Amino acid sequence: MSITTPKGFVAAGLASGIKASGAMDLALLATDDAHPVPTAATFTSNLAAAPPVQVSRDHLAANGRSAVGVVVSSGNANAATGAQGRADAERMCTLVATGLGVATDRILVCSTGLIGIPLPMGPIEAGIPRLVAARSGTAESAADAAQGILTTDSGRKEVLIENPTFAVAGMAKGAGMLAPDMATMLAFLTTDAAIEPGPLADLLRIAVRDSFNSMSVDGCTSTNDTVVLMASGRAGIADPNVVVDAVTEACAGLCSQMMADAEGASRIFQVRVTGAASDGEAHQAARKVADSLLVKCSINGEDAYWGRVASDLGSAGVGFDMDRLSIAYGGVTVCRDGLAVEHDVTALAQHMAGPLVDIHCRLGLADGDGVVLGVDLGYGYIDENRTTS
Amino acid sequence: MSITTPKGFVAAGLASGIKASGAMDLALLATDDAHPVPTAATFTSNLAAAPPVQVSRDHLAANGRSAVGVVVSSGNANAATGAQGRADAERMCTLVATGLGVATDRILVCSTGLIGIPLPMGPIEAGIPRLVAARSGTAESAADAAQGILTTDSGRKEVLIENPTFAVAGMAKGAGMLAPDMATMLAFLTTDAAIEPGPLADLLRIAVRDSFNSMSVDGCTSTNDTVVLMASGRAGIADPNVVVDAVTEACAGLCSQMMADAEGASRIFQVRVTGAASDGEAHQAARKVADSLLVKCSINGEDAYWGRVASDLGSAGVGFDMDRLSIAYGGVTVCRDGLAVEHDVTALAQHMAGPLVDIHCRLGLADGDGVVLGVDLGYGYIDENRTTS
Repeated sequence: MSITTPKGFVAAGLASGIKASGAMDLALLATDDAHPVPTAATFTSNLAAAPPVQVSRDHLAANGRSAVGVVVSSGNANAATGAQGRADAERMCTLVATGLGVATDRILVCSTGLIGIPLPMGPIEAGIPRLVAARSGTAESAADAAQGILTTDSGRKEVLIENPTFAVAGMAKGAGMLAPDMATMLAFLTTDAAIEPGPLADLLRIAVRDSFNSMSVDGCTSTNDTVVLMASGRAGIADPNVVVDAVTEACAGLCSQMMADAEGASRIFQVRVTGAASDGEAHQAARKVADSLLVKCSINGEDAYWGRVASDLGSAGVGFDMDRLSIAYGGVTVCRDGLAVEHDVTALAQHMAGPLVDIHCRLGLADGDGVVLGVDLGYGYIDENRTTS
Repeated sequence: MSITTPKGFVAAGLASGIKASGAMDLALLATDDAHPVPTAATFTSNLAAAPPVQVSRDHLAANGRSAVGVVVSSGNANAATGAQGRADAERMCTLVATGLGVATDRILVCSTGLIGIPLPMGPIEAGIPRLVAARSGTAESAADAAQGILTTDSGRKEVLIENPTFAVAGMAKGAGMLAPDMATMLAFLTTDAAIEPGPLADLLRIAVRDSFNSMSVDGCTSTNDTVVLMASGRAGIADPNVVVDAVTEACAGLCSQMMADAEGASRIFQVRVTGAASDGEAHQAARKVADSLLVKCSINGEDAYWGRVASDLGSAGVGFDMDRLSIAYGGVTVCRDGLAVEHDVTALAQHMAGPLVDIHCRLGLADGDGVVLGVDLGYGYIDENRTTS
């Protein structure tokens, strides 16, 4: 269960003093020989993207989509910090690059934490040389890195998928609601399968679509969300179809840990939409239901009030015919052809009281399918998010 | 303050037994001579539109946009009720039409309440003839009508705009969150200004855009939302520009009453976006911020955490440049050119503790403006919405 299990990677994590608590706040992931390897990344679509996102995007584009490593700071998002923020993010890369003896643009950078406060560069200037020096392929160093990227997560989020010929590992932090103001989702993945930059980017796009982009905590898109995948190639060429499955599985594993750790949430639910006009419409409709305040409150109250689900589907902007709609909770059909139907209320109540509520919406139009995971809305979310102090 | 103040209208309201509580649950608004008058209506955009919405749309289209009256039932939404629901909605119209001696399609119909339960036609069959018989132009009858459309509203919502030559009056119910499952917004307006159906429809569209469509409680679009405006013409021809202002003012007055009555909300806020690429983009961006769970929680906590506002603007799908963004709360600028700025923290705290928080976002791109009203998110919303029982 270590980001350095795939061959060719080293990691490190330490406390530099960004966090007043003294918790770990810097992390490094890099190739063990400081040579660049194919690297893919997906960044937030938010136009208020934070300076580290801007810098990482530029570095990746400048380097034919290969990189030597990524440095992460936690406790301050370096977001809404303008030109100074961009200079600070560049400086973090330069400090790592100098230590590794590579060009600055071979390094990517991520930050997570409070928005609108300049990065405290004193601790970072002193911390990064120590971080570079501490790098190793040991499980301890990997655990430190997985710890150093966290904000108020209850613990490290790590995953390892081992195949006969290659491995995929990952570490992550967050998912909205984890903290009042540290809603950023960061994930870092490594593999020792050999994949060229182009196919690697395609593969990550598919894996992210089927994992991170199919979960929703509060419908908010952070300024700093980033997923990075590095492929060392040390395990040789692997079947791309097998690799995409392994990377998707790794991402899904990290997603589950994030959802389970969402403070303030008492229950996870999944919205499955089938029979939509297309997969895209199914996904859009499922997200509308998963993000619905009224549905989220119902899940909190263990109330299978399907009228709200129907109402959200009808306003999701997708093809919809009320007379063809069926809705089931945990396999108990409560609505068929748009009408209430008699059902087993005991079985329904048992399902609604469980830890994972399944809402299956059949639109009856074509064969488009989509699934989105959501969390309930209760007092906890408000307690977490009403103030930053 | 009476829906029958504009000349030419009668009203009635009574308890028929739809509501177990014995509260009033039927209302009628009609012309005093049972002659049709130009009538405009806007209906929910939800594709799961309830049978009464479908029937009213059809009746209005069949009649050259003129009508004699509208009948309203509260306590049951007649939504997700299929062909039986459509027959029941038609039957309500027929019962009124018979009493007034007009064709069925001269009558519109609205219902509000629980979704997915067939309308109890026994009480309605007995109640509507009594309702028709009780109609009058008195203030008492108007008050009964305004009462009969309510669900869990704390009291009647009425408005009257009097001009030298004409009057506009209105009554309304609801706005999401008022009750677990009766989130429908209904509004009925009368005027004695003389306006043809075409201009009347244009006028209502403008008024609704600048009032009901510029408020957001939870981002949910009900299956039953309806606004109806009838123009008797008894006061003669009026300047359309003056009438549109009066109708908009009436709608805005009803909006304020709905927002103030939103149970579970402790504070209203307005999001003003200026300097957007267009008015449409400004409105879209303002709505994104007003609907943001994180922003709503911040307002509940009196926390001017502008980073969340910037993040929502950046993901609103509109033109955006972080480096040009300014944000002020109650006139206290906290962010300029995308960066935090020193500000008067005492003045800011005072504003955040007040009953109406004003968030002004200047995008600095062009001259598009838009305003959306929102409400905070606190325990109250969850208490109201977690179960239907």
